[in-house]
Amino acid sequence: MTDSTPLSVAGVAALRAQGTPVPLGIAPATSSDMFKSAHCYTKPKAKRWDHILSLEAKSRKVSTLKGAAHYLKNPGIISLGGGLPSPEYFPIEQISAKFPTPPGFSPEETRESGTVMTASKGDVKNGNSIYGVMWVMGADWCWADLEVALNYGQSTGAPQLLRFVTEHTEVNLLVHCHGHGHGLMAQIIHNPPYADWHCCLNAGSTYGWDTALRLLTERGDYILMEEYTFSSAAETALPLGVKLASIKMDEQGLLPESMDEVLSNWDEAARGARKPYVLYTIATGQNPTGATQSGERRRAIYKVAQKHDVYIVEDEPYYFLQMQPYTGADGTTPPPPASHDEFIKSLIPSYLSMDVDGRVLRLESFSKVVTPGSRVGWAVGCEQIIERFMRNSEVSSQHPSGIAQIILFKLLDEHWGHAGYLDWLINMRMQYTDRRNMLVGACEKSLPTEIAHWVAPAAGMFHWIEVDWQKHPGLASGKTRDAIEEEIFQAAIQNGVLVSRGSWFTADKNTPEEKMFFRATFAAASADQIEEAIKRFGDALRLQFGLA
Amino acid sequence: MTDSTPLSVAGVAALRAQGTPVPLGIAPATSSDMFKSAHCYTKPKAKRWDHILSLEAKSRKVSTLKGAAHYLKNPGIISLGGGLPSPEYFPIEQISAKFPTPPGFSPEETRESGTVMTASKGDVKNGNSIYGVMWVMGADWCWADLEVALNYGQSTGAPQLLRFVTEHTEVNLLVHCHGHGHGLMAQIIHNPPYADWHCCLNAGSTYGWDTALRLLTERGDYILMEEYTFSSAAETALPLGVKLASIKMDEQGLLPESMDEVLSNWDEAARGARKPYVLYTIATGQNPTGATQSGERRRAIYKVAQKHDVYIVEDEPYYFLQMQPYTGADGTTPPPPASHDEFIKSLIPSYLSMDVDGRVLRLESFSKVVTPGSRVGWAVGCEQIIERFMRNSEVSSQHPSGIAQIILFKLLDEHWGHAGYLDWLINMRMQYTDRRNMLVGACEKSLPTEIAHWVAPAAGMFHWIEVDWQKHPGLASGKTRDAIEEEIFQAAIQNGVLVSRGSWFTADKNTPEEKMFFRATFAAASADQIEEAIKRFGDALRLQFGLA
Repeated sequence: MTDSTPLSVAGVAALRAQGTPVPLGIAPATSSDMFKSAHCYTKPKAKRWDHILSLEAKSRKVSTLKGAAHYLKNPGIISLGGGLPSPEYFPIEQISAKFPTPPGFSPEETRESGTVMTASKGDVKNGNSIYGVMWVMGADWCWADLEVALNYGQSTGAPQLLRFVTEHTEVNLLVHCHGHGHGLMAQIIHNPPYADWHCCLNAGSTYGWDTALRLLTERGDYILMEEYTFSSAAETALPLGVKLASIKMDEQGLLPESMDEVLSNWDEAARGARKPYVLYTIATGQNPTGATQSGERRRAIYKVAQKHDVYIVEDEPYYFLQMQPYTGADGTTPPPPASHDEFIKSLIPSYLSMDVDGRVLRLESFSKVVTPGSRVGWAVGCEQIIERFMRNSEVSSQHPSGIAQIILFKLLDEHWGHAGYLDWLINMRMQYTDRRNMLVGACEKSLPTEIAHWVAPAAGMFHWIEVDWQKHPGLASGKTRDAIEEEIFQAAIQNGVLVSRGSWFTADKNTPEEKMFFRATFAAASADQIEEAIKRFGDALRLQFGLA
Repeated sequence: MTDSTPLSVAGVAALRAQGTPVPLGIAPATSSDMFKSAHCYTKPKAKRWDHILSLEAKSRKVSTLKGAAHYLKNPGIISLGGGLPSPEYFPIEQISAKFPTPPGFSPEETRESGTVMTASKGDVKNGNSIYGVMWVMGADWCWADLEVALNYGQSTGAPQLLRFVTEHTEVNLLVHCHGHGHGLMAQIIHNPPYADWHCCLNAGSTYGWDTALRLLTERGDYILMEEYTFSSAAETALPLGVKLASIKMDEQGLLPESMDEVLSNWDEAARGARKPYVLYTIATGQNPTGATQSGERRRAIYKVAQKHDVYIVEDEPYYFLQMQPYTGADGTTPPPPASHDEFIKSLIPSYLSMDVDGRVLRLESFSKVVTPGSRVGWAVGCEQIIERFMRNSEVSSQHPSGIAQIILFKLLDEHWGHAGYLDWLINMRMQYTDRRNMLVGACEKSLPTEIAHWVAPAAGMFHWIEVDWQKHPGLASGKTRDAIEEEIFQAAIQNGVLVSRGSWFTADKNTPEEKMFFRATFAAASADQIEEAIKRFGDALRLQFGLA
């Protein structure tokens, strides 16, 4: 592979064959650099971010004991150094899991024709797996995959899984450039982000965001957030003394003009804080509004970020829940993407894919597309920031569970590979399209359109329903907007349906809301339940608003 | 069971039969209160700790979305509220693991006669497991154990595993009271800690300590630490701006007199910080010194903590690596404890077991006795502190990996039960006794006793070897103590053995060390390797000191 060829799914095998082998043994040092294609190094390096690192981040040093591990490279050395337990004392001899085999992705098909993958203590010795890779130390030390997974690891995560997510990131990144419509292959190659991006596995994106806040902010700082945002993301920031500056949204989410205005007119004295330099955004299928920023919108926001030197944290759990276009209650869903290439081209480019400066930290998650119970996610960003992430994990979560990592590795890499994973993601796209259609169809059928309005979401799990509270009869008897929202919420519960109140999600709790929203998710309930639940919500609204 | 009966292993079945059932469904709210015996509530409550909570801890509120979950209790309600994915989209149909069956604990026996336990999506529906427990919502929702494990959970951890560790904590706590030698049963029952203790699972004790620091300290504070301490624990504190006040040690570890002296003479102006109110201690098999505090020593330290109102964090990964007495290179190891009761009585009482005030946070770990790769640990402390821990996890790690939790549950609860786990811990005790004996025996055989001294450790993984650096010939030519330590360390590496330098572990880096130590672990290397490694270290020492 020459250095001018961007990585494709088909190219992964060749890259692996000629690239760095997965490193050896228990808790070896790894980095994405081992797994990136030569193409990446044709790009310029990221900017430096020293000026936004917190005092905590700046003062954290390399772990003394991890630093000593490099002496283990000496041939024949016997280590009485690190306190890693001997694998013979791990009382788990073997772990097996049954996975769907593409294209039979349903639970029924999996039960019938799924594939059982096994990790055991003897695998590597017996040549069955690459997870642990033989590591001869002295005469008789060697490690099998489960032995490695059950021991301590590095805070980058297991090398085998890190390789998978690094490749996954690179493939998508480059194909995104296609999607920009810049045309020629040559332009694609020379219009990329930057050279020194890295991935680091973590204990889930909630942990990733907590870490980002601790590394990038000080008590008293403001960060920029969508005016309606994931309440837990806001609640992560607030106890750290970080305040939220709210940016206006439209149906595509974050408004670049509003962001520019907030930053251009920032009054340090009035706010009692320096100008914000971190933006938190959920660009795709935003929680709670379901809004998805178009590629054009993202480029406009990126420009504003450059203008004001803002660092962007894109939290993208719903990225692969981009759905087929909504064609109305009686419309026909367009057929699924015909190829991996078509699928990847259909995805809106990420901030990361347009990040010439290295000013984007992308929080990636398996929670919405594989399983939240794994508590394995990863972050992608420039080497400087990712290195600080690792240093933080070393003295905190250490690394995601080795048991969860080896099961994900067995599924994603050994069983599915990149092609099978893309098949799965296409399957998820179609499943969520059906669910979205059911919910939006139910709304069209059962909600009173005199007072309820919505836009069918293009991605994610959430449907955002606006209610004309100004038409509520309680207004005449002096009820406040907030009281009316609470009344509608309780009326829905009385009628047997739980939806989320829009006000739970406001970033700025001090400015009164003009509008009123309720959030409904189509992620979990069955088709029948969705239909029934929306009917109940519609009935509650009619009763509340005195409609026939 | 009456409320005056302390819980025993044998009593767990009766407690479960009459107690609260494991709560239902996905991510149900749980607490240790559901699983404690009535005996616990005969005790007084813990003191309040508002005065030591950090600003961050004090300002963290209950998660808005988790708070909404209580509406789900309404019968027949359909939730379009929370964004939990539907289990049909988790591409893992079944997970199995092969575990040792007591008493056949060796890898060989496990391969031959181990037991395979399985968790699958259909288990609960089919009555095979309690993990998920049937949860009927509307007409057709019910959850199987793997479906629950693969979804989001509460930050207390899975109820089924929380129940196990709560029972484990209570059994040991009460039997510790036996061990105090207070005699009569009546005294045991009326001489316990306090009523409102709780357990909370976490993403490993490293994470637990990081959380404790964030909840209990502010930038600029000092905490108390052993003069030699686990370097990573110190390195967790330093970037938070927390400084380390070093307490002197002897062969039993932490000296209460030194702690009292440091606190009694604390000079706020000179130190530029308020008097410390948090002690971090590894009471058993301390890392790096291998020292184990006796019960008497712990009681003395607890008294000093009471005198100065210090909160104690006891980090106890090596607690169950308390070994048989060392009887010399040619001695015979005493036979293993003949019963669970004898085993538990042989253990030194924990700080938690003597904690009348609720001033102890105990960090518990599976890393050294089951597997570090699970990244599942737990903390025990008073309700007020544990509640703040949970609130922190909700917006950080969320909870330990559900995949790791269900595998531990299958092993510890469904397969072994408390009795089998104690059998395993007795097995670990004997295994580590053998390893310790090998290393200490090798030292007796191969180290130059003219300049090398040690005490056989009674617990843990570490052997602490003092070297008389004052006898080093380099001193005459003007070499410093630090240069001599580095030279010995490098000479050992040149000779093919890695040991850890004692100076890596000093809490106070500003005060020059008087002595010189090296740490060797007997956790990982094989018998042959240990013998060879110590021979190499001995040869390096002889060469360095010009001994024959």
